[in-house]
Amino acid sequence: MKNKTIVLALGGNAILQAHEKGTYYEQINNVKKAVVEIIKLIQDGYKVIITHGNGPQVGNLYIQNSLAGEVVPPMPLDACSAESQGLIGYFIQQEIKNELVRNNIDLPVITLITQVLVDTDDPAFMNPTKPIGPFHNRKEAEFLKKRTSFVMKEDSNKRWRRVVPSPRPIGIVEKEVIKKNVDEGYIVVTAGGGGIPVINKGREIIGVEAVIDKDLSACRLAVDINANILLILTDIERVALNYNSPKQKWIDTMSLGEAKKYLAEGHFKEGSMKPKIEAGISFLENGGEKSIIASLFSANSSIKGKSGTTIKN
Amino acid sequence: MKNKTIVLALGGNAILQAHEKGTYYEQINNVKKAVVEIIKLIQDGYKVIITHGNGPQVGNLYIQNSLAGEVVPPMPLDACSAESQGLIGYFIQQEIKNELVRNNIDLPVITLITQVLVDTDDPAFMNPTKPIGPFHNRKEAEFLKKRTSFVMKEDSNKRWRRVVPSPRPIGIVEKEVIKKNVDEGYIVVTAGGGGIPVINKGREIIGVEAVIDKDLSACRLAVDINANILLILTDIERVALNYNSPKQKWIDTMSLGEAKKYLAEGHFKEGSMKPKIEAGISFLENGGEKSIIASLFSANSSIKGKSGTTIKN
Repeated sequence: MKNKTIVLALGGNAILQAHEKGTYYEQINNVKKAVVEIIKLIQDGYKVIITHGNGPQVGNLYIQNSLAGEVVPPMPLDACSAESQGLIGYFIQQEIKNELVRNNIDLPVITLITQVLVDTDDPAFMNPTKPIGPFHNRKEAEFLKKRTSFVMKEDSNKRWRRVVPSPRPIGIVEKEVIKKNVDEGYIVVTAGGGGIPVINKGREIIGVEAVIDKDLSACRLAVDINANILLILTDIERVALNYNSPKQKWIDTMSLGEAKKYLAEGHFKEGSMKPKIEAGISFLENGGEKSIIASLFSANSSIKGKSGTTIKN
Repeated sequence: MKNKTIVLALGGNAILQAHEKGTYYEQINNVKKAVVEIIKLIQDGYKVIITHGNGPQVGNLYIQNSLAGEVVPPMPLDACSAESQGLIGYFIQQEIKNELVRNNIDLPVITLITQVLVDTDDPAFMNPTKPIGPFHNRKEAEFLKKRTSFVMKEDSNKRWRRVVPSPRPIGIVEKEVIKKNVDEGYIVVTAGGGGIPVINKGREIIGVEAVIDKDLSACRLAVDINANILLILTDIERVALNYNSPKQKWIDTMSLGEAKKYLAEGHFKEGSMKPKIEAGISFLENGGEKSIIASLFSANSSIKGKSGTTIKN
């Protein structure tokens, strides 16, 4: 397995889980559990690049910014995303290092603040779909629509949330440096939360109010640094067809063709399994060896084909 | 000047100035002005490592955490420090890159999340002195003392603030990686806010509630990576003896011996000029060539000896 490179994407709500409040200790403990499996991959000789979601964490930062808004000027989403990269990167960096020490492995672990380029003309900017922050009732939503530039949308439970654009990642600004540090043998945490969204303005870059899907950024990253495996870790054991229906069927492996067929048939839920499958397909179509979707706690066994769902040619 | 290495420390209140609210645009614009001078050093062939303070920014994060505390679990200071490294690192990284592009220089700029080791037995833990967050009146301070573990202290204007330990930095956890990336020729932003404070627990590291002085961490960093020059940028043009008195005298250069004598004579203000002079002295005593204290907007001319105060052997 020497020199095989894995881009591993940790779900943000694996680190701050739905039933939790999101305290420091909860988040550190979740990371602690996840890194045990990651270290096994390193012991097996894989080079590991870690990326992660930030949904719940950036949601919390957003609430803090809103509630303190009268006293402290609220930061826009690109800045909140940068803060969440620092926060979650720190948790992961510290816990991986500690787990390495427990296993007598001397290897540096680093977190790189990462900007991800999106297209100014991405249709997502005209049609925001990604919900962030707290739920509101209709009255609050009307107030926010009047007083801010926020786009508010109602969900199926008549709750309102702010929605923001989720444009596609088209390039990792720091990819050269990421690759260099990976080649050096370091464990690199990067492109957290899908990356800080930036657009080109002339030859320069500036931040934008958006949230990039972390699985699509993980795929972009994996392609850009010529990784062999894209490993997306989430809160389910395997991918299913006809999910949550009497005809539900778990999948161990599928070909690229099968994955595309199932995707077209609408088996995968928008904003949940669908972007993971899309990322997995896109990785293979751009030269990747295999894409795996597995549970947070089965990173190691899923690489060996003993758990999770593998997509390969 | 080829291959001379400068560790450059930007004051946190140069990026978010005392008369400002601390909006996104204010902070980005201050960074924009500062990087113009920094790029000139790079054009002259210096290798530049940038570190920065985070006082006002971590103060804002702390207020956000407090005001939203009923809804979102507040993060401890090490986590806030990690967030501020992401935020300020992003600002600096983006603006340096843009200024490089404007000058047709193709050079990667990176921000490394950085942990700085402090000693569990540092006397600072028994005697917190560093004020953070908002001012309180006596009643509020009494309430906080009763309801939290905060240590509250009154200042000379009868205003109360929380004070936290400010232990001395004894090691940069990621120093090997920082050095490697500097050697590679990258512009590295690191150890922001004095670094995320961590202590050893057995062979592992864990975060602590403290704030490390950024000038002392800059010195530690400069020594650890064998830098030639320590350049501390702040909001004054030069160091003065008898500051703010009729006998005030600006200093262009001083020897190590003179600096130590003036320090012992009490010329430099605690929490302001004193730690800068201490950092400058310590750098020379540990093999550094020269230490410079200068204005944020004279980085380039101070290196040439045309502004600022230089300490050398």
